[in-house]
This record gives sequence, structure tokens and C-alpha cells, in this order.
Amino acid sequence: MKYCSQCAAPLRLGIPAGDDRPRHICDACGTIHYRNPKVIAGCIPVWNGQVLLCRRAIEPRHGFWTLPAGFMELGETLEQAAERESYEEATARVRIDSLYTLFSLPHLSQVYAFFRAELLSPDVAAGLESLETRLFEETEIPWDELAFETVHRSLALFFEDRRNGAFGLHVETLGPDDRLIRD
Amino acid sequence: MKYCSQCAAPLRLGIPAGDDRPRHICDACGTIHYRNPKVIAGCIPVWNGQVLLCRRAIEPRHGFWTLPAGFMELGETLEQAAERESYEEATARVRIDSLYTLFSLPHLSQVYAFFRAELLSPDVAAGLESLETRLFEETEIPWDELAFETVHRSLALFFEDRRNGAFGLHVETLGPDDRLIRD
Ligand SMILES: [Zn+2]
Ligand SMILES: [Zn+2]
Repeated sequence: MKYCSQCAAPLRLGIPAGDDRPRHICDACGTIHYRNPKVIAGCIPVWNGQVLLCRRAIEPRHGFWTLPAGFMELGETLEQAAERESYEEATARVRIDSLYTLFSLPHLSQVYAFFRAELLSPDVAAGLESLETRLFEETEIPWDELAFETVHRSLALFFEDRRNGAFGLHVETLGPDDRLIRD
Repeated sequence: MKYCSQCAAPLRLGIPAGDDRPRHICDACGTIHYRNPKVIAGCIPVWNGQVLLCRRAIEPRHGFWTLPAGFMELGETLEQAAERESYEEATARVRIDSLYTLFSLPHLSQVYAFFRAELLSPDVAAGLESLETRLFEETEIPWDELAFETVHRSLALFFEDRRNGAFGLHVETLGPDDRLIRD
């Protein structure tokens, strides 16, 4: 962030009065430009016990498998974002169920929310951001080819909870080395 | 958003290739400037059954009472944000407990997360953004002077759950008319 998006003047990094950390400040128009963590919403779409995954056609992690998920847009709810991403990535119609995992990724300044979901029809197809889509039995999950630790962790918890017969909510922090950090 | 924060060129509103909605595009340097929902994290600090509220010294809702909460910063977890806001607004030291409410506010493009929390000491004081801080019994809560619907709803659920002896997680959508919209 180098120039003011309101008036095009160069920005200065400084600590505003009453604040305790550096912000991008425009001395020309007085705007303080804050930067904020981003929210990614997704779901675990299930059809007859099988989970829908998409193989990514975009970076990062091109070619790796992921649950449908993506950046929340302005004007959306978390559930609407998860629903929209399922359609965009896999033309999948889903019924969003309970919130299942909520991850803080402080090294990326991201918050991930995955819901459990019912896939309403097995007729899915690769959207623009996917190479292919497929339904997986637990034994077929490509654990070593998953795109993100948030996906890996959500799926591991999902199958563990399913074996135990109860789905809890899991609120966790994931760190930069892709291993789980419990706080 | 009028000028590119990378190169200061004027921005154009247009739909990028492969996208389905207008973005702020810089034709000079090729940057697409996305706008994203913001995350607010807070908590319900409890001391001997009493809840800590802060009276706001800033807009919006100057003079109204709120739970400690504020915009999540880069590099934080949700829990760290809730903890930091408690200290900033009320010099309150808290031990963050379970996630309690998670609200989507699509009309404001915000996501609110409140945790239950234990106040570690009743020695609290108004921070820079507060006029005063106080511990409230349930019967003393200033229901008509609460700053935000997210605070009102979280407190109402909290006392209801406490009477029933069990705190669940509540994931809800709140609409522009400040009444609860169930989706
Ligand atoms: Zn400016
Ligand atoms: Zn530019």
C-alpha cells in the first residue's frame, strides 16, 4: 500500500494518535488506511456418506484437492459464501448445516469457517477454478494431495467425529508450519 | 476507492475475466483491488456472575454500553483479538473460554465473534475508547442503552443459556433493521 486510494497522495507509515501500531496514513486527505484479516468460508458437502472435493485449477496449490471454499464477499453471510463457493467450484447445490470448524491463521491473517453440508444432488462438475470434482469415500481421500491444512484438519476431524457419532464445533489456531498449534 | 494503492493511477470499476462481479481494476499496473468483510472479535467477561460492560467514548454509538470488542488486527487469532480489546477498552485481563456467538451482518459486511470469558480481576478501568466500565448483574443490564444488536443478542442468549444451565454456540444472521433474521 503506497498511495491513498481516496486522493492518490503518497502514504506514510505512522502511528495515529490514540493508536498503538503503525498504519498507512494519508497526510493530504487525512484518511487512515487499515488492513484487516480476510474471511474464507467453505463447507463439507456430503452425498451418501461421500465427501465432495475439487481439484484446484488455480494457484496457490494448483492440482491439489480442496473442499469448496473461498473469500467471503461484501454483503454475504458466512453460509451464503459457503453455498456460493460450492456452486462456483463444483456446480454443487448444497444445504448448509452447522458450523463445523473455525480456524484462525494468524501468519496469513485469515479466518476460515467450514460448515457441514448436505449435497442435494450428485450431479457436480468442475467450475472455472477446478480441474475436476469427485465424491470420495473416507478410504479414498487423497490425504497427501490436499491443498490446505484447514482442509486436511477439517476432513480429519469430520471422519473422526463421524466414527464417534457426534459432530462438535472445533475452534482452532493453525500455524505457519502447517502443523496444528493448540492455544 | 478511486486510485490504485500500488501505482496511484485512477481505478476503473469492471468485471475481471473469470469473475462475476465488479471490482476496482487498475489498468496501469493490472492490480485488482478486492474489498472484503471485516471481522470483529469480543468477549463476555464474567466476574462472580457479573458481566463487564464498557460505555463507549467513540462513535458510532458514543455513550452507549458495549461488550469489549473490536476489529481483528493482522497477525492475530480471534481469541487474541478478543483478549486485546478487553485490555484496551477496560484494562481487563481475561481468560478466553469457548466461542459463544458468531454473527454475519451482511448489510455491514461484518462478521462478529464473541467468546465467553473469565475476568481474572475486578480491577478494571476505562481505556481510551471508553467513558466508564462496570460490572453488571443480569437485573442491572441497561438493555435500552446497549450499543449494538450483536451485544444485545449475545447478552440475551447468555443469560437465557445460564438460566438453562448450558451454553451452546449460536451462529446467526443479523439484519439492517436490528431485529434478528433467522436464515
Ligand atoms: Zn488521501
Ligand atoms: Zn495500479
